[in-house]
Amino acid sequence: MKHVYILGYGTEGSEDAEVISVNRSVVREKTGEDLVVSHILDLREFPGDINEDKIVNDFNVILEDPETDIVVETMGGCGAAYEFTKKALEKGISVCTSNKALVAEKGPELMKIAESNGARYLFEAAVGGGIPIIRVLRTCLTADDVDGITGILNGTTNYILTAMDRDGADFDTVLKDAQDKGFAERDPSADVDGFDAGRKIAILSSLVTGKNVGWQQVYTEGISKIEQADFEYARVLKRKIKLLGAFRKTPKGVFAMVAPFMIPASNPLYMVDGVFNAVLVHGNMLDDSMYYGQGAGKLATASAVTADVTDLASRGGDGVRYVWDAEDMELMDFSSTRRRFFVRVAADKKEEALKAFRGTEEVEAARAGEYAFITGEMSEKNFDEASEMIGGVIGRIRLEV
Amino acid sequence: MKHVYILGYGTEGSEDAEVISVNRSVVREKTGEDLVVSHILDLREFPGDINEDKIVNDFNVILEDPETDIVVETMGGCGAAYEFTKKALEKGISVCTSNKALVAEKGPELMKIAESNGARYLFEAAVGGGIPIIRVLRTCLTADDVDGITGILNGTTNYILTAMDRDGADFDTVLKDAQDKGFAERDPSADVDGFDAGRKIAILSSLVTGKNVGWQQVYTEGISKIEQADFEYARVLKRKIKLLGAFRKTPKGVFAMVAPFMIPASNPLYMVDGVFNAVLVHGNMLDDSMYYGQGAGKLATASAVTADVTDLASRGGDGVRYVWDAEDMELMDFSSTRRRFFVRVAADKKEEALKAFRGTEEVEAARAGEYAFITGEMSEKNFDEASEMIGGVIGRIRLEV
Repeated sequence: MKHVYILGYGTEGSEDAEVISVNRSVVREKTGEDLVVSHILDLREFPGDINEDKIVNDFNVILEDPETDIVVETMGGCGAAYEFTKKALEKGISVCTSNKALVAEKGPELMKIAESNGARYLFEAAVGGGIPIIRVLRTCLTADDVDGITGILNGTTNYILTAMDRDGADFDTVLKDAQDKGFAERDPSADVDGFDAGRKIAILSSLVTGKNVGWQQVYTEGISKIEQADFEYARVLKRKIKLLGAFRKTPKGVFAMVAPFMIPASNPLYMVDGVFNAVLVHGNMLDDSMYYGQGAGKLATASAVTADVTDLASRGGDGVRYVWDAEDMELMDFSSTRRRFFVRVAADKKEEALKAFRGTEEVEAARAGEYAFITGEMSEKNFDEASEMIGGVIGRIRLEV
Repeated sequence: MKHVYILGYGTEGSEDAEVISVNRSVVREKTGEDLVVSHILDLREFPGDINEDKIVNDFNVILEDPETDIVVETMGGCGAAYEFTKKALEKGISVCTSNKALVAEKGPELMKIAESNGARYLFEAAVGGGIPIIRVLRTCLTADDVDGITGILNGTTNYILTAMDRDGADFDTVLKDAQDKGFAERDPSADVDGFDAGRKIAILSSLVTGKNVGWQQVYTEGISKIEQADFEYARVLKRKIKLLGAFRKTPKGVFAMVAPFMIPASNPLYMVDGVFNAVLVHGNMLDDSMYYGQGAGKLATASAVTADVTDLASRGGDGVRYVWDAEDMELMDFSSTRRRFFVRVAADKKEEALKAFRGTEEVEAARAGEYAFITGEMSEKNFDEASEMIGGVIGRIRLEV
């Protein structure tokens, strides 16, 4: 029997406890290991709760218990979660988590502490919720040079973009509705400004390159400037607007970014709507493969956390092996990365714009008084210069192939 | 350095050699292991080929070589492939393969021989080509009770169905075109009659249940009866026609089947066109997740085989653990499984059909002289009885949700 200790009894902590308990016999059948939640750390009390008698208020109870095998950290953030994770790993107790903020901020350090003490720090659930993308990258696609990752990594923004497209409502209305339904946080910035997706693509980029891609290095743009008109144009182009996290290895270097893109129907990410997440991986031999599932569905994240717990219990976490050095990965200058852009300008700027951006392809206007077009492939820097040359554009969205 | 021996130097064997050679440094970086193809077994000679000097004609050269670490079997079929695989495993040499016929036929026996001799028999590439579905099921989704698998598992039939839909051509014309392009075999039966998909769903069902689901037990129907009219009806219903391999755990038992289905746009498999494969997995906690990629793209299968080789080289194949007993899984009677059907009858049978099938929903006729409808949920047995009662139907396709 393996004793599991959960830090935090909020939504996720209670779901982790539920999955471990409901699927106890399934896990035992598959791995021969018997998982039991022994203690749950929370400052609150939970009278009448099914796990009432397991709640403890002092982390030291867990740390000093000689029976502690595995710690599940569901507290979130980089404060107490960092401190407790570090203490557990220093004692040789393995930790698994879905805490992407902590993994993106302190991943290499915590993995190093784990290694020095014969423990493991696992975080399958930190990216893609129920999609086992970390194991896919590190344990399945081992024969490939992974040179591209493109993901819909944030369910909240995908829900908002899908609803704006379907219902014709504006960003603020849909955001409020998403907040009312519990799909968006009261403070939505981490999601809508792209930082959550940025942390996730930083983690995936680090695992692919083996070096540290800090989330602060990721060029990040959110969705709050996307307007109804953009969806109308997208439909003319038979494209959808999605917030993508992207990692690319190019002959000139590697880069990582988060921004809204218009993607065509031929891209498998096109059909990923609502709260679903998906990650498209390109390998030099495998070509494209895609992994699709719930980003943060009711029990999807808990299923991924429990898969880590199961791995720790049955093979010491050896079902996945990370390489993620503390050394920073040098990224190429984002302004030199190249792509095509969809652009909206005032109708009377048509001639100027055609000249400044060169090689443009007109898009049937969805708005009176506007001229819309698609540029040829150009660098971010050249785009910005052309834009400045004509005194600014009404809007622009990058194109994904 | 690990010495790899490839049995068979056809398309796949040469692609395996290519992947191992081209990605040698990538694999070394990821795992620290250096893979080298030492010998390739083939009866032919290959003058001028890059691997000319590695060709041997006698399997014993490989079997007796003390340096043989890993054998890759690409010969196909259940004859010499079976014999050589068995001999290698008996000598404690691990084998990996994409040979789904042999895995479906002799999987449990070969795995047992491997186990008794401290070797491994790995076959990630046997199902889904470049999609790492076996590792996903056995190593990633360990916390879930997997109660449903639905896959587009055969690229040839998906190519044919996609082309029939897109081009309005009939089955024979598209099949001939697929054969000319090399997407279909000269003898297309294994693909178009569903047996290839049947072997694959049998393998996945065995790995999920842990017992042996023989491919002969899988209810199998091919695509040769699908007509242009069916696609016209499907478009009216906003559905696509796909050949699905399905495994289901139900309260009444488990079953596995292969048949053409009409699937709605809300199903993520809807967008899987052409030679692509995809597998939708349902877990009791995770809900739906989907894995998408090339079924048999140029180097996709070789990438999967090389991932197995890499796993064997770096951790003795322990990156995936199978449970697949020789004991046969008892499947429920297929005739008692339940679903809805799309049905075409002669127009003058409308009243009779409405009576016999009950609870029907009319579909706008795509063909003069026909009446088309959708049944309520009913068992296969009841469907057959109703069909017989009215003297047969023009056609019927099952509906997937």
